[in-house]
Amino acid sequence: MKRKARIAVFASGTGSNFLAIVKAVKSGLIKAEIAFLLCDNPGAPVIEKAARAGIRSLIVSCGDFPSRESFEAEVLYALRRGRVDLVVLAGFMRMLTPEFLHAFPGRVVNIHPALLPSFPGTHGAADAASYGVRLAGCSVHFVDEIMDHGPVIIQAAVPAIPGEGGEALAARILKLEHCIYPQALSWLAEGRLAIEGRHVRVDGAAPAACGPAALPFLTSPGLEPAFLPTLP
Amino acid sequence: MKRKARIAVFASGTGSNFLAIVKAVKSGLIKAEIAFLLCDNPGAPVIEKAARAGIRSLIVSCGDFPSRESFEAEVLYALRRGRVDLVVLAGFMRMLTPEFLHAFPGRVVNIHPALLPSFPGTHGAADAASYGVRLAGCSVHFVDEIMDHGPVIIQAAVPAIPGEGGEALAARILKLEHCIYPQALSWLAEGRLAIEGRHVRVDGAAPAACGPAALPFLTSPGLEPAFLPTLP
Repeated sequence: MKRKARIAVFASGTGSNFLAIVKAVKSGLIKAEIAFLLCDNPGAPVIEKAARAGIRSLIVSCGDFPSRESFEAEVLYALRRGRVDLVVLAGFMRMLTPEFLHAFPGRVVNIHPALLPSFPGTHGAADAASYGVRLAGCSVHFVDEIMDHGPVIIQAAVPAIPGEGGEALAARILKLEHCIYPQALSWLAEGRLAIEGRHVRVDGAAPAACGPAALPFLTSPGLEPAFLPTLP
Repeated sequence: MKRKARIAVFASGTGSNFLAIVKAVKSGLIKAEIAFLLCDNPGAPVIEKAARAGIRSLIVSCGDFPSRESFEAEVLYALRRGRVDLVVLAGFMRMLTPEFLHAFPGRVVNIHPALLPSFPGTHGAADAASYGVRLAGCSVHFVDEIMDHGPVIIQAAVPAIPGEGGEALAARILKLEHCIYPQALSWLAEGRLAIEGRHVRVDGAAPAACGPAALPFLTSPGLEPAFLPTLP
């Protein structure tokens, strides 16, 4: 039997996506194991969440290294020593170099709180609220050399309400992030994703599907039942 | 009793959105009357559609005028003579000048086959297909000086399928365009829209709502029952 894929989660913040991924791994929805959390912010709440979940944290401050290259060399060393197959960015506030990505081709994924290519960058949801979109959302994608740009695996749309502000919109988006990221990682861990240029084929994916009237959303592909959000 | 709003539709192409608007006006869903079709392309199929619907066409070729200013002066003259309240761009392949827009403040609207601000420009749906989005869509917005940029009234998201190509995606988007544009114009004709900076408030709008499993989509605001698409 093939061994389970080993995941490293890179995060810099509160770690709510990290926690959603941990839960999906522990319940067997993602057929993988988490090698460690890598965090570049020693004060990030995600570190405490990892400790409670019994997951090893590796805290590496970029400032402790003489160069970005030496920082990434340390990270790559940890990934190899941990026999890591997949790098999962979950609110990791640092760009990875092309050299790093070449070391993990097609095996680094990210989630972004916007319907890419709209609103790339560090304030996706807030930028969408300021712009005045009526539909916002989130995207899981493979990472390439350009920020928030690689081939898209799954997207979810949620309504935006005029004047609600970025935080309320971000919270509504986050609820869907906690569904589509574990779903995408389950496909990835099972080897069901194929990158074909700018497109990602999902083997056996469900057709795009809507949420219930109480929680309107649209995801494409559709979420498998186990990954659907719980109703408010 | 207040007189009905008078609409001029500007189009350059096949006129499918024009026809959807005409039908909604004739059935009383849009409480307005169509003053005329303005077309800047003498060979456009929309002209024949207008003739069949008994709607007057005004064909103005920009090339027949010495300058853009004189072209727009002619158009403005026609709008004033026709007591036009609202200018509705429906596949009109020409940018309007700031001077023109100042003459019709908050009374020029457009539809675009993408989830703006993604994929502005003349090939919205094809660009979305090439990019590899999983959710595409369309947007109705007020027109400002920047192409496909003004405050958004309503958006609809539809799934994109990897490798389906721009035409198939455009056709799926178009089906929703034919719903959200008449819906937006009905609100506009009834004076139910208020522009507040980058946001548009819709008086009495339904919450965002999803389509049925056979036709997955999400619109925000929700469509009133009369504006829902027919099932395939």
